[in-house]
Formats: sequence, structure tokens, C-alpha cells
Amino acid sequence: MEEKNMQEILQKAEVLIEALPYIQRFNRKIIVVKYGGSAMVDEELKKSVIQDVTLLKLVGFKPIIVHGGGKEISKWVEKSGMKPEFVNGLRKTDAATMEIAEMVLGKVNKSLVQMVQELGVNAIGISGKDGGLLKVDKKYSDGQDIGFVGDVKEVNPKVLFDLLEKDFLPIVCPIGLGDEFDAYNINADDAACAIARAVNAEKLAFLTDIEGVYKDPSDKSTLISELSVSEAHELIGDGFIGGGMLPKLNNCIDAIENGVSRVHILDGRIPHCLLLEIFTNRGIGTAILGDGEERFYCKSQN
Amino acid sequence: MEEKNMQEILQKAEVLIEALPYIQRFNRKIIVVKYGGSAMVDEELKKSVIQDVTLLKLVGFKPIIVHGGGKEISKWVEKSGMKPEFVNGLRKTDAATMEIAEMVLGKVNKSLVQMVQELGVNAIGISGKDGGLLKVDKKYSDGQDIGFVGDVKEVNPKVLFDLLEKDFLPIVCPIGLGDEFDAYNINADDAACAIARAVNAEKLAFLTDIEGVYKDPSDKSTLISELSVSEAHELIGDGFIGGGMLPKLNNCIDAIENGVSRVHILDGRIPHCLLLEIFTNRGIGTAILGDGEERFYCKSQN
Amino acid sequence: MEEKNMQEILQKAEVLIEALPYIQRFNRKIIVVKYGGSAMVDEELKKSVIQDVTLLKLVGFKPIIVHGGGKEISKWVEKSGMKPEFVNGLRKTDAATMEIAEMVLGKVNKSLVQMVQELGVNAIGISGKDGGLLKVDKKYSDGQDIGFVGDVKEVNPKVLFDLLEKDFLPIVCPIGLGDEFDAYNINADDAACAIARAVNAEKLAFLTDIEGVYKDPSDKSTLISELSVSEAHELIGDGFIGGGMLPKLNNCIDAIENGVSRVHILDGRIPHCLLLEIFTNRGIGTAILGDGEERFYCKSQN
Amino acid sequence: MEEKNMQEILQKAEVLIEALPYIQRFNRKIIVVKYGGSAMVDEELKKSVIQDVTLLKLVGFKPIIVHGGGKEISKWVEKSGMKPEFVNGLRKTDAATMEIAEMVLGKVNKSLVQMVQELGVNAIGISGKDGGLLKVDKKYSDGQDIGFVGDVKEVNPKVLFDLLEKDFLPIVCPIGLGDEFDAYNINADDAACAIARAVNAEKLAFLTDIEGVYKDPSDKSTLISELSVSEAHELIGDGFIGGGMLPKLNNCIDAIENGVSRVHILDGRIPHCLLLEIFTNRGIGTAILGDGEERFYCKSQN
Amino acid sequence: MEEKNMQEILQKAEVLIEALPYIQRFNRKIIVVKYGGSAMVDEELKKSVIQDVTLLKLVGFKPIIVHGGGKEISKWVEKSGMKPEFVNGLRKTDAATMEIAEMVLGKVNKSLVQMVQELGVNAIGISGKDGGLLKVDKKYSDGQDIGFVGDVKEVNPKVLFDLLEKDFLPIVCPIGLGDEFDAYNINADDAACAIARAVNAEKLAFLTDIEGVYKDPSDKSTLISELSVSEAHELIGDGFIGGGMLPKLNNCIDAIENGVSRVHILDGRIPHCLLLEIFTNRGIGTAILGDGEERFYCKSQN
Amino acid sequence: MEEKNMQEILQKAEVLIEALPYIQRFNRKIIVVKYGGSAMVDEELKKSVIQDVTLLKLVGFKPIIVHGGGKEISKWVEKSGMKPEFVNGLRKTDAATMEIAEMVLGKVNKSLVQMVQELGVNAIGISGKDGGLLKVDKKYSDGQDIGFVGDVKEVNPKVLFDLLEKDFLPIVCPIGLGDEFDAYNINADDAACAIARAVNAEKLAFLTDIEGVYKDPSDKSTLISELSVSEAHELIGDGFIGGGMLPKLNNCIDAIENGVSRVHILDGRIPHCLLLEIFTNRGIGTAILGDGEERFYCKSQN
Repeated sequence: MEEKNMQEILQKAEVLIEALPYIQRFNRKIIVVKYGGSAMVDEELKKSVIQDVTLLKLVGFKPIIVHGGGKEISKWVEKSGMKPEFVNGLRKTDAATMEIAEMVLGKVNKSLVQMVQELGVNAIGISGKDGGLLKVDKKYSDGQDIGFVGDVKEVNPKVLFDLLEKDFLPIVCPIGLGDEFDAYNINADDAACAIARAVNAEKLAFLTDIEGVYKDPSDKSTLISELSVSEAHELIGDGFIGGGMLPKLNNCIDAIENGVSRVHILDGRIPHCLLLEIFTNRGIGTAILGDGEERFYCKSQN
Repeated sequence: MEEKNMQEILQKAEVLIEALPYIQRFNRKIIVVKYGGSAMVDEELKKSVIQDVTLLKLVGFKPIIVHGGGKEISKWVEKSGMKPEFVNGLRKTDAATMEIAEMVLGKVNKSLVQMVQELGVNAIGISGKDGGLLKVDKKYSDGQDIGFVGDVKEVNPKVLFDLLEKDFLPIVCPIGLGDEFDAYNINADDAACAIARAVNAEKLAFLTDIEGVYKDPSDKSTLISELSVSEAHELIGDGFIGGGMLPKLNNCIDAIENGVSRVHILDGRIPHCLLLEIFTNRGIGTAILGDGEERFYCKSQN
Repeated sequence: MEEKNMQEILQKAEVLIEALPYIQRFNRKIIVVKYGGSAMVDEELKKSVIQDVTLLKLVGFKPIIVHGGGKEISKWVEKSGMKPEFVNGLRKTDAATMEIAEMVLGKVNKSLVQMVQELGVNAIGISGKDGGLLKVDKKYSDGQDIGFVGDVKEVNPKVLFDLLEKDFLPIVCPIGLGDEFDAYNINADDAACAIARAVNAEKLAFLTDIEGVYKDPSDKSTLISELSVSEAHELIGDGFIGGGMLPKLNNCIDAIENGVSRVHILDGRIPHCLLLEIFTNRGIGTAILGDGEERFYCKSQN
Repeated sequence: MEEKNMQEILQKAEVLIEALPYIQRFNRKIIVVKYGGSAMVDEELKKSVIQDVTLLKLVGFKPIIVHGGGKEISKWVEKSGMKPEFVNGLRKTDAATMEIAEMVLGKVNKSLVQMVQELGVNAIGISGKDGGLLKVDKKYSDGQDIGFVGDVKEVNPKVLFDLLEKDFLPIVCPIGLGDEFDAYNINADDAACAIARAVNAEKLAFLTDIEGVYKDPSDKSTLISELSVSEAHELIGDGFIGGGMLPKLNNCIDAIENGVSRVHILDGRIPHCLLLEIFTNRGIGTAILGDGEERFYCKSQN
Repeated sequence: MEEKNMQEILQKAEVLIEALPYIQRFNRKIIVVKYGGSAMVDEELKKSVIQDVTLLKLVGFKPIIVHGGGKEISKWVEKSGMKPEFVNGLRKTDAATMEIAEMVLGKVNKSLVQMVQELGVNAIGISGKDGGLLKVDKKYSDGQDIGFVGDVKEVNPKVLFDLLEKDFLPIVCPIGLGDEFDAYNINADDAACAIARAVNAEKLAFLTDIEGVYKDPSDKSTLISELSVSEAHELIGDGFIGGGMLPKLNNCIDAIENGVSRVHILDGRIPHCLLLEIFTNRGIGTAILGDGEERFYCKSQN
Repeated sequence: MEEKNMQEILQKAEVLIEALPYIQRFNRKIIVVKYGGSAMVDEELKKSVIQDVTLLKLVGFKPIIVHGGGKEISKWVEKSGMKPEFVNGLRKTDAATMEIAEMVLGKVNKSLVQMVQELGVNAIGISGKDGGLLKVDKKYSDGQDIGFVGDVKEVNPKVLFDLLEKDFLPIVCPIGLGDEFDAYNINADDAACAIARAVNAEKLAFLTDIEGVYKDPSDKSTLISELSVSEAHELIGDGFIGGGMLPKLNNCIDAIENGVSRVHILDGRIPHCLLLEIFTNRGIGTAILGDGEERFYCKSQN
């Protein structure tokens, strides 16, 4: 064999061997992946996410995908002759809008199932209605009625445990049932967080459209690679965190404080960011972890 | 206690006792219910079907619902500014139509889940994509390309057996995956029949908008209560069966010839027709059974 | 179909649908039925009890029958040339009487097995000897030796759990083993109560020859439909309860205070009283329940 | 330690070590013991049989006892003022006699349970009614109606397998159910043989009141220690076998020809004959085995 | 049968029956046997130990053998041209010695497996490396480095529970892994004691070259048959215990104080001492038991 | 992130994604690895083999290692003052040599266990004695007695299936038991082949000191990447295969003809050759497969 080939081959082996301790650490552990943002729009990124999650499944992890439907819902609402309306960033969801939201989320849900099946892994797409997974309370925005928008009040994880036991990859869209068994729309980040807590996930990973958490959002060089819960509270207290990052970071804190070991805010615009974060020595984005917990990764970011 | 009360009470007991041998006979058996027609439109009938299936589940049967979406698909196709088109009774299904069909079927699917959950039973709504349940071949109508319409070529029942084992009520909408992992629309009767065969169902029941099979469709007094496979073949051969009944009866024959013990064509316009057929001495509609099989029901119809 | 038939059919369906929430509530729960009194003598009532219990089994409950042998024991004692003797209502049981008592109870036990098997359900008839189910202390009546009469001192429920797990209906006759492994006769009510406690039964139902508990036994209009444990204690304290009802009510209180959710004193002279109590909105007899527990049945009695 | 004590101790060890290969050979194998004759009357013998079977159970075998009630039934029939009647050696069994037979067999059955429980092993006493174990056809004696006497026509071994799985020692009395679900008396040898076949027993042992099979019944020195099926057929053909031994030997042949590996006719008058036959190098009575099967025991008899 | 034969036969039966209560008491209980001393050298004794343990296995116990390699290690060390060296009774174990120790222990280990397999029982020979069974800390002798000698610091009993569940007889040699995953030699008594604690053994038996514990080691008539933990502490405190017995007795105390029910110091020079101790009324050697525990054996020693 | 880093990161992801279909194909399949040659001598290679097998285990395969001891046995034989002797390439193995061979193989075996445990995976090291895994016939070399050298005559795979079920990585050294339960040395290639057949392995991989099979051994450019069984027979028939390759290739053929799907002759001198063969698109060495079987790998070699 030629020297050059040999070299290339050995590099391949090294990448695989590098993954060994991570495979071992997370073997049979549950990993909840909140899938959203650009990674849901770009076809190449979409494929890379699905490949990543499928690989996690195959090497012995137990991933659960929670996804939103964002821009497509608005598209279909408009297509139906209605006008999307938002109150404080929350979609005002009357019955007609809810009907469309559920249809769009169902469509996205099954299209992800389809992609996973194509890679030879068994997936099942469910909403929070199935098996009574997500029970919600009606949510108000500053006291204003915004329709069928809900806050998760109870998660019944039986359906997820059953599907995992039977070796399926569960794919969940964030619709829940109210007290009267009506359908309610739920923020996908919130749903992912509530599910991660209920199944006692080892990891919760958010695929986002940013690089991670910055100390100073205006200075890209201030990206934080690891953040303890206390540090996160501090950053928020100091007013450094704003916009869409604030609720996300609160979700991260909430997950960590309720038993999830580690939460990741990943840059979903990097292909295979999930795989790279989990299987290599190189950290991607920002990891939030419990105070005093060992920062074992020693992952470099530059 | 007054005489009249006593009388009424005893009648109640009799109805329950009458159910005893049927509960016993079908204990832990799989029953596939094709749910469609008026029973999907009228709210009262809808509720009665869901109550019936839920009761079947609770007393130890293993029901599976397979449903269509019929009129609602056309409604939404039109709403989206397209015109529903049919070739020989089959919906011409281009990509845009398929997208809408899948959205509508998904919506109907989860609304049934919702109703079952409200009655306290755990349901999971899936399509033929989930777990690779339904694989299809592209279907042509007299050689004409009618788009994403498929014929079931393979059923992978693992997902159904898993859900039944975990005590869920599976609710299936008839979408399948083609060789290239595209979504295809499937006739709901065909899907129900293929599924009943694959899970080796004890019973397959079609909820329809007719009273049953007539010897002479123009004479309502000629309703047939029991029909052997040979008699069914004969009826078809003699040209007595026409219209929408022909493919349905062929499905019945196909099911019986492939291991399903008994197929029922029920009048879905009668509330609780399913319950009455299964739990009482009174037959509803037409039963198709294997040649030489004991016609044990002795059910009267008049 | 004629209007009248249709009407009748719908009433049937209603009875079944009425049963739905009860079937659901008690699914896989253990129900101990103390079977005795007239319901053991009259052939029609006997058949109705067996049908009821068999139906409970088939729809997913886990019934256990505990029965006595009452009048037949005396009959056979006399037939053998001895004279039945009672001390304070307890049968004086010398060795010869015990031998006959055991033979008669065994005969009754297997005849019940026979009836259940005829209805197609697997039953196993055991006494408290089998698997060491019932251990007893010798019982004295006001210090007087009355022979082989025992008080349950320990229940080993393994045999019952094993039989239930293997899907048998256990039928138990109240004979126990003393410290020296001799056979002792046990009051059937006491045995049923001890067993209900040991298996953590959801319900304990006594089939009796009275309508239920009366506030004033001389006034049949004072039948009590629901009674909390405190109210039961009060009634006893007030001296309203006498005769055979006193020990029975004490058994009820004992059962409730040791984990059984609800105890029923049913009128075994009403055919299918068990079925009606459990599956319909109409209460039969008197229900005893824990203080503060929801009186959810809303069952009417008149 | 003194020499003499040492000697005695080593002999004890030798007996235990001698048992080792036999314990190993029959580990987890089913052994059906037909218990009858003197061993059921003499209290010491009774105790020795129960000790033997209990020991078999404890060291890992799966024994099943099938017992008769012989002389006691007649005793109780007479006690009830009737006269025992026999036709060709079969008890004429009218309804009243059957009732007594069942009571007596039930009493014997539970007294054996009692003895086994006393030795600390869990037993369950059943008849052929329980779990539908024994189905019978009515038996006629030379065309004459002799009442409720049955021939086993079907064994449903589920109940036995379930009890063995749950680690109980099943004790069976030979009563079966006819087509109309009436109780029928069965010859205990026949019942034991039918059960041994149905559970695919490794061994079937008859405890009898003779030393074994003789070549010449008038010459005690002609006791046969091992007999192949062919040799047994021959002996019968030559007219050497008569009296009660003929049906017993036919049962042995039947068992061997239907999958039981070895049948033993043991002298139940020797204490612990069962233990000695199974655990020592010394054969007791006559062993019947398949043609060509290795006569591996090399057991001496003198 | 002749009188003398009969007599002899009955004695055999008695020995077996005598074993019955002991078989029952220890059924499915774990018994750790420390195998060492003369019983490992003399071929006859070796065979008798293996027969005993195999019999224990066959009658339902769960024995685990822990063995040393003692004299053979020195023999091979010398054979390799090195000189065995001891510090305070502990073998000074440099890398070369450790290599030889492991080879010798491995050889002994597999030769025991071989003997058990020959008796028809499945054995697996492991060291403390397999499945991470024994983790050690480096041991110093009065501060002096004596090489690869370890103290057990952690037992991971999974491998033992797995092998027992799969019906193997585990045979363990006392080598453990240090923090750097090097091999360390462990005292076999210590290893047996640590394992007995970790698997929650019912019994721990040491096969030794002495008769048992003496009150006065110089007077053989002062052999103690039963010793409570307090009495053992007292004996040690009084200085009566010395030499090799001191650490052994401390191990016994440690085991009892950590959940093992009874520890035996047996005279391994008596053939089948293990069997006799466990299966007969005669005690062998000294039993150590918890304070206040019932001295149920009533075994005589003289 | 810099462009160059990004590039490197994406290449890492590609390697992992490349592995996806192979992980999927061999999920839960058994892979027998014959470990020998240089890869057992060089410390770096040793580590790379253990890493590879451990990774296979972690991602869901079921690897079994079979190893030899080759040069080390000779070394220790000499160390003990004996002279290694070979007849036709087979080691003449008298009792003393066998003792040493077993000790050395045991040492190697446990050192591999140690390395796997260090990587955090549970391993158990066994020989063919454990659980009766390998039964052998004495082997003669051209009729000449060469001592304790055996041919596998029977494999009892129970122990391997049990260990795999309990999630251990079995490591096997090639010693077997003869009819008299003596230890025999077995050629490691033969043992690996016999084991692969008995456990119905998906793959059997030989780590060797050559690049693979050559059409013309003198011309390195004639390396064959895939070889059907027929082609292999042909090559042998044509006399192209000689030396140590002949028995190895015969083992390959034997394995394929007895149910193993694919056999690999890998160059053990390439680090991670096992991983690269299994997880990448690049074939290493020569694959032998059944006639007519799809050559699905499309792996390139150059």
C-alpha cells in the first residue's frame, strides 16, 4: 500500500477511536434533540441532522427528536387566506390556526420519520396527544387570551419509554392536550425541555442558528464554551443575555436543575454539529452543566 | 325494591351476560376496524364508534383502527385553490395534492387519538411510514399515471405488535412508502385488508354506509346476513355485485382466504353497530366467512 | 330495520357503554367475592353468581371467590349419625366433624370449579392448606374449647398471586393449618376479609341474604347505600347493628382500614347483583368506604 | 475423632455421593408418582413416601403425585348406608356414590397437601376438574352402564406446567369432566399414565403392593428387574401376566410407547422405595424401558 | 429380600432423609467455599471437595469456589531460577513473581474447572480481573513495599450473579486489578471473605488444615463447635488465638458482621467435610455465627 | 471558526457517517476475531486491536476473541529447561509441555481481559474447558503420536451465548477437553473456525502477518480482494496456495460452507485493520464469501 493511502487510512481509524470513550459514556443513555432553525430548512443540513441522530441510535444511544414547524406554519396560514398574528412573540392561535398548525406539524413530523426510515432505522412520529404524552395549561400573554397556546403542565413519559424499549426512534411534535382534551400548540423548546426532564435525559441539545452563548453578543470572540448553572444565572442577572436566547437559557437552567446532566446549545448551521459535539474532542457551541460538575470534555474551541 | 325497577335491572344484567361468550371468544384477539363513511362525519356516530372500539380494548380485545379521510381531503384541496381530479374513482394525486392529503389524514388521525385518550385509553396514531409499516408499489389506472397512489406490496407488522404489546390502541392512516421512500396515498379499505392479513386478525370490520350485501341491490329485503367465500365468488360471478361494493367484497374474500376468520360489512349509520355485532345475539350487516366454517352466531336479523 | 327493533338494540348498546368506565376503573384489579347464603342454594342464583364472576374475569378483573359450606355441612354431619352442635354461633368441631366439614367444603369447592370451567374459564379450587395460604390459631369461644375452629393469623398470598398471574380464577374454601399442621375450620367471612387484605384487593364483596345495612333494622326504608368507616363505627357504637351483621360490619371496617378500597354488602338474592353493582350506575346494597374518600359512584338506590 | 465415628461419617458421605449422578441425570425432569396401595394406609409408609417425593422436589426434580382413594371410598359409601358394587372390578358409580367418591378423594388429596406443607414444600391439590386437566368419555363395562366412570380422552397439561413453573408440587386426584361437565371417576393408574404422557414425563413410578413383575408369579425367585417393551408384550402374549398386573403392565407399555423414558413398578411396602430406586445403585422392583435403550443403571437386586 | 440387605438399604434411605431439612434450608442460597491447604494437595481429598461442591450445586445451592495456589507458586518461582521471599508472612511479589503467580493460579483454576466439568456440571474459572470482579489497593507490610500484593477495596459482583443465573459454578482465583489496571496478588482468605460479603452469601466455609478453633490450642479436647461473634472477639482479646488463625478468625468476624449468616472453619483433611457439615446432624469444625442467633444445628461433635 | 478547522471537522464527520451503514448491517451480529501473529507482539498493535474490538462491542456488535500464544509458549518451555519440538509444524506436546502451554495461554488470556477492562468494557477470559466449550479428539501427525494435541470434535456454545447475553466480551484460549477430560492444545485458527461455525457468526476475521491471499505469492501486485468459495477451491486445486496459507484458507472455506457469511484474512500489521475493514469503504486484505453472494462492499484496494 502506498504511503499516502496508509496515512489517510490511519487518520480514519483515529477518528473512530476518538469516538470510543464517548460512545461508552453515553451508551443506552437518553439524548433529547430539539430540532429547529436553519437545520430544518436547508436540505443538506436536514440530511446531516438525520444522519447524526440515526448514528447515535445505531451505536447504542437513545435519541428522541422534538421538532417545531416554525416558518411553514405561517406559510400555510397565509395560504389559507389568514394572517399570522403574534403577541409578544407568541403566535395568536385561534381554532382555524390551530387546525393548520397541527396539520403542518404532522406533515413535518412524518417527513422526518420518512428520512429516518430511509436510513434503515425504525422511527415513530407522535404528537403530545399520543399516549397522553403532553398535558397543558392554557397560556396567557400578559393576561391576554392568545387562543390555543399551552404551557406543559404534565408529561406522561410511558409512551416514550415504551417506544425506546421497542427500539424505535421517537419523533415528537409539540402539541398537547388541555383539560378538556382540546389540542394546544406548545413552544418546541419548552416541550423539549419538559420531555428531557420527564425521561431523565442524559443530554438535551438545542440546534440553533447561533454559534452559542456570548459574554458580549456584539463580540463574536466572547463565545462561551462551558457555563455552569450559577454562571448562567449570573449572566442573566447582569443583563448580558437578551432576545431569543433568554428563554432558551432559562430552559437550559431548568433542565439542569431537574436532573438532565448536560445541555448543549449547538450551531445547527454546521453540518453534523451533533455528531462532532458528541463523538469528538472538539466542542461545538456552548455546554451548560451543573455547578461543581467535572468539565470532563477538555474540548477545545477556536 | 319496586317490581318495575327490578325488571329493568334484570334486563341490564341480561345484556351483560349475553356478551359473556363473545368476550370470551375474542379475548386477546386482534380486530381490525376500517373506519369511514358517515360514521366519520356525524359527531354522534363518531363518538359511538370510538366508545365501541375503546370498550373492545378494555374488555381484552386488541383493536386496530384504520381510517380514511375522504371528503375532507377534497375540501382542503379546493381550499388550496386546486381542483380534485379522479380517474376511474381514484384520486389523481400530484405532489401538491399528496402533501395536502397527508396533512388532512394526519389531522384526522390525531383527532381520533384525542377522542380515545379522552375516554382514558392510550392510543397512538401512526401512518404507514412509521416503523416502515406499509411499503407500496406505484399504482396505475388502466396504464395511466395518476401520481402518488400506491398498492400495498408489503406490510411490516412489527410496529403494530409492539404497540399492542405495550397496551396501546393503534390508529393507522393509509399512507405508505414507495421504493424511493416517497409518500403514497393508499385506499383505506385496501390498507385495512392488508393489515388484517399481516397481523393475522381474527376479525376485520368495515364500517360502511350501506346495510350490507344484497342478493338484489334493488330489493332491500334481500340483505344477506352470512356469506361463505364460495357464495361471495358466485355472487360476483353472477354479476349481482357492482359499484363500490365490488372492490370491498373482493377485499373481504382476500382477507378470509389469507387467514382472517371473519369479515363484517357493517352499517356504520347505526350507532354502536360494532358493539352490537360483536357482543349481542343480533347480527348487523353481512358477515363473510370461510367455506365450511361453523355459522355459530345464530344471530337473527330482521 | 323496524323502529321497535332499533329502539331495543340501542338500549342494549347503552347498557354496554354504561359499563365502560367501570371496566376501565377496575381493570387488572383484584376483587374478592365472599360467596354464601341463598346464592349458594338456589340453582338459578348459583348460576348467576358464577356467570357474574366469570364475566369479571373475562373483562380483565382478577376475581377470587371465597365460599362457605354452611347448611350442607350440618346435613352431612347428621347423615353420618352425629348431631351438629353450636357454641355462641360457632360450630363445635371435633375431629370427626372436621373431617366431614373438609369433605363437604371440598365437594362444594370443586363443584364451583366445574361450573366456571363449563363457562370456558380456567379455575383452580384450593383450600387454605394449599401453598400454606391460611395459617390459623386455635379459637376459643369465651374460653371454651370448641375443637378445630381457627382464627386466621397469617395469610401467604403467593399461591393466589401465582394463580392469578397464570390467568386462573382461584376458588378458596376456608380451611387453614394450625401450628401442628392440623386442619381447622375458619369462618368464611373472616377468611375472605383476611385474604382481601393480604392480596391488597381493590374490592371485597359479601353476598348475603339481606338488602344491606339499615339504620333501623326494623324499618326497611332506612337502608344505607354508602357508609364511611367513621359512620360504621358510630352505628356500631350506637348499638344499631346487631346479630350476624355485627361481625360482618367489623370485617368490612377491618378490610377498609387495611388497604381494601371499598367493601360491598350485597343482596345475594337479586340475580346478578355483583354485575349490577360493578357495571351499572345503580348501587345494590351497602358500600363501605374510607373516610374522606370520594363517593364517586353517584349510584341511586330506590 | 474416634476411628469408629470417622468410619460411620464416611459411610454417610458415600451414600450422598452415590446419589450425585442420579440427581444430575434427572435434574428438572418430571416424575409422575402413582401413589396407592399399602403405602396409603400405613402411617409410617405414608410419611416415607411424602418425604421421598419432597426430597425429589428439593433436589431439583419436578414430581407430580397422582393418587387414588380405594378402600376409603368403600368405607364412606357404606357409612352413608349404601352398598359398594363392582362390575368386572370397576366400581358401579351412581350419582350418590360419585358424590361420596369425590368427597373422599378430596379429603385424601388435601391430607397429602398438608403433609407436604409440613415438610416445608409448597403443594397444591387439584382434581382433573381444575383448569380442565382431565376430560373423559363415559366408560362401559362389556356394554353395561356402570355410571359415572370415565376413560381419559384428553389431558390439558397447562395447569400442571403452570404449577411446576411456580415451584409447586401438584397432587392430583383422578376425577375428570365429561362432555356435559359432569364429574366422572377415573382409575388412578390410568390417570397417572395419561398425565405422564401429556407432560412428557421422564419417569412414571407405580407404588404397588407387590415386589414387581415375575416371570412365574408362583415363583418369587423369578422377579424381573428390567423389561423392554418387546419383552413385556411377549410376557403378556405368553399368558404369564394376569390379574391386576395386566392393566398395569399395559399402562407401562402405553407410557413408554408415548414418550415416557422409563416406568417403574415399585414395592410400596418398602420404606423409601422411591428414593432408593432413584438415588442408589440398587434397583427396587421392575423397570420397563424402550427396546434398545441402554440399561444404564447396572443396579443389582438380590 | 434378605434381612441384612433390607437393613442396609434402610440406612441409606435414612442418610438421604437426614439431608432433607438442610437441602431445604439452603435452597438457592449462595455458599462461598475457600478451598486451600491439604485438600488442594492430596488427590483423594481434592476429588472429595469437588464432589461435595458439585453435589451442593446439583441440589439447588449456589456454591462459589475461591482458591489459592500456595505451595505451587513457590515451586514454580524456584523452577524459574528465582527465590521466593516473604515479609511478615506475605510473599514479596515483583513483576516476574507476579507473572508466575498468575500463571500458576490460572493453571490451578482451570484444573478445578476440568474436574467439575468431568462430573457433568458447568463451571467457569475466572480471576478477579474478569468483569472487573476485584479492585485492589496496593498493600504495604509495615510500610515496606512488597510489590504486587493487594488489599481488596471493591468487589463488583455482577459477573458472579450473571454466572450463577446462567447456572454455572464460578471458580475464582484471587488476583485483582489496581488503579492502573495492573495485576495484584490477593490473600485467598481475604478474597473469599470480600466476595462472600459482596454477594450476600448465606455461608462462608474455610477448608483448613486444623480441626477448628480451640479454647486452648495446646489441648485438642478444647475444640469449640459454635462461637458467637462476641465470643470470638473475647477469645482474640484474651490472646488465645494466634498464628494463622488470627487473620482467619478476623475474616470470619468481618463476614458475619457484614451480612453472611454463618461461617465455618472446617477440617479439610476429613473427606467430604463440607457435605457432612451441611447435610448431616454432625457438626465438623467450628461455626461462627451472629450474637443471639439461634444455634439451630444441635449438631454433636465428639 | 477558521476555514481550515472547519474543513478538518467536516472530514471527521464524514468518517463517522461513512461508518453508519456498516454499524447498521452488523448490529447485534457475532464477529469472531482470531487474534495472533505480530499484532500480539507489538504493544502498539496490541492496543489497536483491543481498541477495535472494544469499539465493535460498544456500537452493538458481539465480538468474540480467540487467541493463540505462539512464541511465548516456546519461550517458557525453554525457560523450564525443555526443548520445543515440532512435527510437521505441530508442537509435540508431552504432559510437561502441555502444563506450560496452558499456563502461558492463561496468562495471555487474562492480560487481554485486563486491557479490555481498562477500556471500560466487561470481558471474561475462558478456555475451551469452561462450560465444556471445546471437546477434542487426539490428533496424530501422519500416524505419529504428538501428545496432547487435539482436533475440535464438538463445540458447546452455551457458555458463549450466555456471556454475550450478559453483555460480556468473551476471550477464548484454544485448549479443549479430551474424552478422559484431559487438557489438549488446539491450533488457534482451527478453534476460531469451529467456534465461528457453532455460534453462527456473521463474520470471522483472521489477523495475520500477510497482506492477504495472492494469486501469485511471488508477485505482491496479485493480492486478491474478494474470493468466492469456488474460486478458493480452484486456487488450491491449481497449487497456487501453499505454506501456512493452505490450512488457513481451508478454514475459511469450511467456515463459509457452514453458515458464516464472510471470512476476512486481514493484515494484522496495519493498525486498526479490523476497524477499517468493518467501518470504512476501503477493504483490507482478502474477503472470502459464498458463491453467488452479493459483493456488496464495493471497497477499493490500492
